[in-house]
Amino acid sequence: MRERVHVREVGLRDGIQMVKTMLSTARKLGWCEATAAAGIRDIEVTSFVPAKVVPQFSDAEEVARGALALGGFTASALVPNLKGAERAFAIGLPLVNYVLSASEAHNLANVRRTTDESIADFARIVAARDAHPGPRIALGAGIATAFGCTISGAVAEARVVAIAEHLAAAGADEIIVADTVGYADPRQVGRLLGKVVAAVGRLPVACHFHDTRGLGLANVVAALDAGVRRFDASLAGLGGCPFAPGATGNINTEDTVYMLEQLGFDTGADVEALVALRREVESWLPGERFSGAIARAGLPKTYRARLDAAA
Amino acid sequence: MRERVHVREVGLRDGIQMVKTMLSTARKLGWCEATAAAGIRDIEVTSFVPAKVVPQFSDAEEVARGALALGGFTASALVPNLKGAERAFAIGLPLVNYVLSASEAHNLANVRRTTDESIADFARIVAARDAHPGPRIALGAGIATAFGCTISGAVAEARVVAIAEHLAAAGADEIIVADTVGYADPRQVGRLLGKVVAAVGRLPVACHFHDTRGLGLANVVAALDAGVRRFDASLAGLGGCPFAPGATGNINTEDTVYMLEQLGFDTGADVEALVALRREVESWLPGERFSGAIARAGLPKTYRARLDAAA
Repeated sequence: MRERVHVREVGLRDGIQMVKTMLSTARKLGWCEATAAAGIRDIEVTSFVPAKVVPQFSDAEEVARGALALGGFTASALVPNLKGAERAFAIGLPLVNYVLSASEAHNLANVRRTTDESIADFARIVAARDAHPGPRIALGAGIATAFGCTISGAVAEARVVAIAEHLAAAGADEIIVADTVGYADPRQVGRLLGKVVAAVGRLPVACHFHDTRGLGLANVVAALDAGVRRFDASLAGLGGCPFAPGATGNINTEDTVYMLEQLGFDTGADVEALVALRREVESWLPGERFSGAIARAGLPKTYRARLDAAA
Repeated sequence: MRERVHVREVGLRDGIQMVKTMLSTARKLGWCEATAAAGIRDIEVTSFVPAKVVPQFSDAEEVARGALALGGFTASALVPNLKGAERAFAIGLPLVNYVLSASEAHNLANVRRTTDESIADFARIVAARDAHPGPRIALGAGIATAFGCTISGAVAEARVVAIAEHLAAAGADEIIVADTVGYADPRQVGRLLGKVVAAVGRLPVACHFHDTRGLGLANVVAALDAGVRRFDASLAGLGGCPFAPGATGNINTEDTVYMLEQLGFDTGADVEALVALRREVESWLPGERFSGAIARAGLPKTYRARLDAAA
């Protein structure tokens, strides 16, 4: 019985927010359906930001409703503020992820308020969630630039831990620690995630890594060693941040699944089905930069999941 | 006082053996000189294989002599057999690396003899080295396909450990454990290198990773945890093996140095000087595939080596 590691597909959110091609709602839902068919049961399907800020998400309601109608996976969405959260609650998504930046400068650039103000906003989102009729909605709370910031440089670990504690105390159901700009290294990941996991106690902790400087998968291993069992990833390594220059590329979903399976974890996902989907998504997004080793090199003869299935 | 990790540049050997452009001897020596100027003190400068097998190495003698004349770094060369070793000894290189494959099928394809025959060949190379006049020449012994083989699949860890013991007993000064085809994962690396380091005792153990499936740097971290402090890497991630389909790309020198410095080790190397050299080497090799994150994204504001230097 292998231990489960949850890979959440964020290609439809982080992955496409900077791409030039506007994806149709139908293609977004096709991407969701194929991802779930490939065995990934957690998908961040959209972002409830104003359409004028990120036009790619002007169909957020339609995508979220369509994803719920598809079923077979946990559909979540990102929200930057209370207004976005209320839009997500109205659709009935079971999981809504809020994000703030540990870096004051990045938070100001991203949402024009201080980190403390964003923590207070989260408390208001929790209250709105509590007041919302219907089944309980889970709230994820993300801490962006937790490993450093392109604007202000280093971010103190104690600050990240304190923010995680505030978000947990305010009512978060999950803490997501994000290397928004690709500054993290494995030693730093092991140290910080060890502290965050200890600080937030019973809450699950997820990591959101970008592979900007090539250390994404090494950072996953360090986070695994610190007890993390949830990772965001983006098909074909799509991704970026409008306020983080050079922050191209979430860790690649298919490569992450490959590594986790080789390490002996159970992701539930089929790498070859993900690569097939990736080829389709690539054809939808001409001119974008895609990354990923497995799509190029293929699985090794020693791929564990395949050997286990044959045994 | 940070702990030293030795990065050996193998771009001039593994890196260029499959490239289409014939590099001039002058450019090869310019590459050596700039690498040493960037702070890398170990360079595998060529391979003493028959010129008809790999025409890129038809100037092996000139490159090796030129590298020795440059000085400032430890020049080594790869040799596949006694004949190659005798050519390398004649030049007076201080370090000569022999390689065999743990996979019988790969060894047969590569050098047309069994692994046991290749171990016996190494004993003859040691005897020739001992009989050679002049300063003592060190002998590295590499074990290719130590983590699996594209021809025969899995390779037993006990077999790799036994080969390492045989090579150490025969007189190797260093054992190099190589993931020739990019099959290794961090758990496997930790387990196998732990056993090899324990088995060969006082001898230094190096790792030679390919990034074929994206796990190269994660594997370096696992090897560091197992006590390894020597790594082969290739500028711009060049590399391949004529008998390992899809085995493109050694781990990238500049990214490896970046990660090691961020982890708190001292490589002695300057990442930006390596990136500048990489740009030049790229211009020499049109049409080749180059990899690497730092050359694309640049160093983070939190780059440790730079912060330390400023402090």
